[in-house]
Amino acid sequence: MNEPARPQVYLLSDGTGITAETLARTLLTQFEGLHPGWHLRPFVRSQEHLEDIFERMRTGPQPALVVATFADATLRAYLRECPVPVVDIFSDHLQQLEQVFGRKAESVSGRAHGIGDMARYDRRIEALNFTLAHDDGLATGDIGHAEVVLMGVSRSGKTPTCLYLAMNYGMFAANYPLIPEDMTGDTRLPSSLRGLRGRLLGLVISPERLAHIRESRRPGSRYASLVQCRDECLAIDEFLYREHIPRLEVTHLSVEEIASRVRAQLA
Amino acid sequence: MNEPARPQVYLLSDGTGITAETLARTLLTQFEGLHPGWHLRPFVRSQEHLEDIFERMRTGPQPALVVATFADATLRAYLRECPVPVVDIFSDHLQQLEQVFGRKAESVSGRAHGIGDMARYDRRIEALNFTLAHDDGLATGDIGHAEVVLMGVSRSGKTPTCLYLAMNYGMFAANYPLIPEDMTGDTRLPSSLRGLRGRLLGLVISPERLAHIRESRRPGSRYASLVQCRDECLAIDEFLYREHIPRLEVTHLSVEEIASRVRAQLA
Repeated sequence: MNEPARPQVYLLSDGTGITAETLARTLLTQFEGLHPGWHLRPFVRSQEHLEDIFERMRTGPQPALVVATFADATLRAYLRECPVPVVDIFSDHLQQLEQVFGRKAESVSGRAHGIGDMARYDRRIEALNFTLAHDDGLATGDIGHAEVVLMGVSRSGKTPTCLYLAMNYGMFAANYPLIPEDMTGDTRLPSSLRGLRGRLLGLVISPERLAHIRESRRPGSRYASLVQCRDECLAIDEFLYREHIPRLEVTHLSVEEIASRVRAQLA
Repeated sequence: MNEPARPQVYLLSDGTGITAETLARTLLTQFEGLHPGWHLRPFVRSQEHLEDIFERMRTGPQPALVVATFADATLRAYLRECPVPVVDIFSDHLQQLEQVFGRKAESVSGRAHGIGDMARYDRRIEALNFTLAHDDGLATGDIGHAEVVLMGVSRSGKTPTCLYLAMNYGMFAANYPLIPEDMTGDTRLPSSLRGLRGRLLGLVISPERLAHIRESRRPGSRYASLVQCRDECLAIDEFLYREHIPRLEVTHLSVEEIASRVRAQLA
């Protein structure tokens, strides 16, 4: 039986290669079960380095594909020498942007994921520190600075989503866990959160999915039992309804999908 | 004086829009000072929704540009009706991939940043939990599971980098802070880390940059003073040298750049 050869995907960049990898992985989602070999080659800043990579490709396994993001125009031009097909992001699209914006593109490496604008970078790190300090309702002193406060039961995805929002978008994201004791009968919003209406969002998850997630953390525990999960999900549902806090159904969503919906909702 | 109009960039996707945004922001780094208006339109799953967006574009400010990532071929075809220029990632590159891989692309929305492969997704969340539990040397019990342990002085970038590695690559990343008391004279590696050689990496930062970062956290403190930062940087340098731990110079690197170098170093 002749198995088709496993394709090799080379990610070449004069920067981190993050954009090349993001794009390549996105395109490859449309070829399920392909399982390519990945070759990350970031910070390629000379023709010699590039030629060295090409040389290995010539003798390496086939089929192979390059996804490249070179901001440097000279290195980009040198991609013509590449022995395997190249998806060349900058060459293919910069011209289109030049026409729309009415000016020439620059040719400067390392801007996309470098420190770049220092103030913007510092803000992202500051946001991350804020989010870590306000994880699980830890600190409440300066919670007024939060741009969004995610509420939900334990393991509904609050912490990863907040970290993602802070890390990638410099968003001051706090989370406030709702524990069963918080939600008996006529419980009201904690006073520290009352001034933040419009920034509060409840994450709602199905008891079955919640039990599954908790089970892998604490197998066989009461915490992970379906009965307990049902009680908590019901209680938070009532609480969010009573307090008129908008809810986001996250049962089948990834962290990225939740983050994207949170951003769209706040925009 | 006639200021050029601020361009509008629309990010359209039947998924999260993360790939579209990453690509657009990368391309736009080559047009410094452009300051476009950003319009994130994720989870567009119908022609009606798309037509509604086009309608607003027709009467909206110009110039405008669309960066689109539609996995769904029907929606992609409908981009022909778009009233402004479109960078259409899938249309432009899928064909090239089809040729290399020798098979047709599928046309399924929401795969790129969805939960997708559940095992792989769960691993990322597990990695994030591991990293949070091992932040600042907190837990050491199961540190043997770490794929990488970043060592460095306080505020050298260990925590954000570990979180980035865990979140985006499902990497079990722990960090171990080196405090001045740890590094007097003939200090040796803590026993819990001795079995992890090959996975240890020291982050090295200049005292000036370190003082700058600490100053914004604790202004005027001894902790942020240049003298203190110099002492700590010197001590860790000696420690890493004595213990033969490879070092990564991070003074001018962003979290993404450090993460990319860590991955390349471990590959």
